[in-house]
Amino acid sequence: MSDLPVRPEDLGEWLNGGGPDADIVISSRLRLARNLAGFPFLTRIDADQRAELEELLRSKLTGSRIANDLLYVDLKKADVIDRLCLVERHLISKDHASGEGERGVALSTREAVSIMVNEEDHLRIQVLRSGFRPEEAFREIRRVDDALESALDFAFSAQFGYLTACPTNVGTGMRVSVMLHLPALVMTKQIEKVFHAVSKINLAVRGVYGEGTQPSGDFYQISNQVTLGRSEEDILKTVHEVVPQIIRYERNVRDSLIAENRRGLEDRVWRAYGMLERARLITSEETMDLLSAVRMGVNLGLIEQMPISMVNELFIQTQPAHLQKMEGRRLETPERDITRADFIRKRLNQLN
Amino acid sequence: MSDLPVRPEDLGEWLNGGGPDADIVISSRLRLARNLAGFPFLTRIDADQRAELEELLRSKLTGSRIANDLLYVDLKKADVIDRLCLVERHLISKDHASGEGERGVALSTREAVSIMVNEEDHLRIQVLRSGFRPEEAFREIRRVDDALESALDFAFSAQFGYLTACPTNVGTGMRVSVMLHLPALVMTKQIEKVFHAVSKINLAVRGVYGEGTQPSGDFYQISNQVTLGRSEEDILKTVHEVVPQIIRYERNVRDSLIAENRRGLEDRVWRAYGMLERARLITSEETMDLLSAVRMGVNLGLIEQMPISMVNELFIQTQPAHLQKMEGRRLETPERDITRADFIRKRLNQLN
Repeated sequence: MSDLPVRPEDLGEWLNGGGPDADIVISSRLRLARNLAGFPFLTRIDADQRAELEELLRSKLTGSRIANDLLYVDLKKADVIDRLCLVERHLISKDHASGEGERGVALSTREAVSIMVNEEDHLRIQVLRSGFRPEEAFREIRRVDDALESALDFAFSAQFGYLTACPTNVGTGMRVSVMLHLPALVMTKQIEKVFHAVSKINLAVRGVYGEGTQPSGDFYQISNQVTLGRSEEDILKTVHEVVPQIIRYERNVRDSLIAENRRGLEDRVWRAYGMLERARLITSEETMDLLSAVRMGVNLGLIEQMPISMVNELFIQTQPAHLQKMEGRRLETPERDITRADFIRKRLNQLN
Repeated sequence: MSDLPVRPEDLGEWLNGGGPDADIVISSRLRLARNLAGFPFLTRIDADQRAELEELLRSKLTGSRIANDLLYVDLKKADVIDRLCLVERHLISKDHASGEGERGVALSTREAVSIMVNEEDHLRIQVLRSGFRPEEAFREIRRVDDALESALDFAFSAQFGYLTACPTNVGTGMRVSVMLHLPALVMTKQIEKVFHAVSKINLAVRGVYGEGTQPSGDFYQISNQVTLGRSEEDILKTVHEVVPQIIRYERNVRDSLIAENRRGLEDRVWRAYGMLERARLITSEETMDLLSAVRMGVNLGLIEQMPISMVNELFIQTQPAHLQKMEGRRLETPERDITRADFIRKRLNQLN
């Protein structure tokens, strides 16, 4: 196993549990899709051009002062576990990890900025922040984008805006994603109402690991669908109008759960804690579900001894690739369930 | 609430987890049905005679040296919670608790001997021992029976033996019951085979609280069906032939569970422990099931910090009447589930 610039033990800023509305909003993410004018889209590029493009972008990214200490990971050379680690911490997409050919990702310290090279587009710039602060992420990503644009010639049309490999990204090339933790809405089966309302205003609901993934652990990503014909400010405005309503809705349901049946809720979150504390075998899915209940318990003050950052860390560190990376070897699924249970137990025992 | 001669905190000898094969055999119980020659059976007795009979038996039982320090509980006067406490610790039957009219029970210290007065028969003598020792219980009950017979005139026929209110008890009037904990046979769905084999040789399988009760927590009582035409020694011989086979069967299945999937078994017993340790609401049924898994874990050395006597105690002390007795007040079901969870948690925390 190779060495990643990010160690599995050290997690990004976005997992520290801070930022506005961090009880419900895990993170705010912005990404921009950009392509260079002088190269074909990756769907039509040949092998030589692809290699040339990757080399060019790598040198521009690592040679510049675009973001603090950008470190470049060559994903063609990287071990599969390392690549999956980067997926698990939301620094690259699943497709980018499992893809082929010259490609990479440049990461800033503490993972606030990640720039994928040769994913669907030549460049996918991402800024990730803990809590609900898309504006702050937007200011940061604009800074990165401007710095890149001063060094590179982006494919841009006066009529359409930024040109991208897939037409759904043309225009601003921007996607805002807010990752929400909505256990009370799931528990009371009111989450469908949220989906319905959100879809009407062209926002999409996705699972934790993006398009096509199932929601797990009561986490949902809300993001814009449309990139064309709307300004960045418009997109942000919609998110700023909608997300606080969902946050209020989740908080109200939590409050009524407490008011109506505090014991029942305590029982639920403490049983989840007890299972994590004592299990000897545990799957990734069950871990997500139990941690979700514990996270709500911590946020509602029902579980006091556990810092929220630790809950957030466990979400990432119990994922398959992180477990294997920390263990320093490949593990088959049954062995992973053992290692995961042992890891969680050890961490929770530190609290006693 | 009145005072019982037995306090809910102090439990009988039969719960100390000792005795032969105590990992699987909770207790060995013997009971004799006896009636006085000069009185009608209780099915045909009138109120005056019933009162007279109770007074006579009470004075004989408390005035004599039949067993150490026999204490008499007047069940007509006893509070319902106290009566149910006695059922929960297997000292009187459900019917005796919920019955009407003059009736009572004489209890020896540490509950090894209990003698019900005016239950189905005039006297029901019971001896209870921890572990598998029906012979020892038999010697003790014969001693008690002889002592009683020297002071009372029992209804006896040279042809049939002891005469009893229900024909199924005529003859020896003896029932041997062995309470077995068979979690591995239940888990692997092999328990039905045991029932089938046992029923063929005229032994009955019953739940923890006797006839007509459902098995819970993987506990089963094996007892003889026939009292007529067989000597006490014959009945004991059958039990001595059959029960060790069931014990071996359960032990073999436990061993293969460990050999084939030690982790899986550890996971099961520790999750049960974790739930007991952390739940804030818990029903009696769930408690039985979880304690059953924990008991097996303790007996297999998978859970080390918990003495088996504590597991056995929790089985009794978490029953509804015991909980209410210890709490000193009536509790409705939802409140009982809270009190039960709090009680268990407090006890288990003493181990940390």
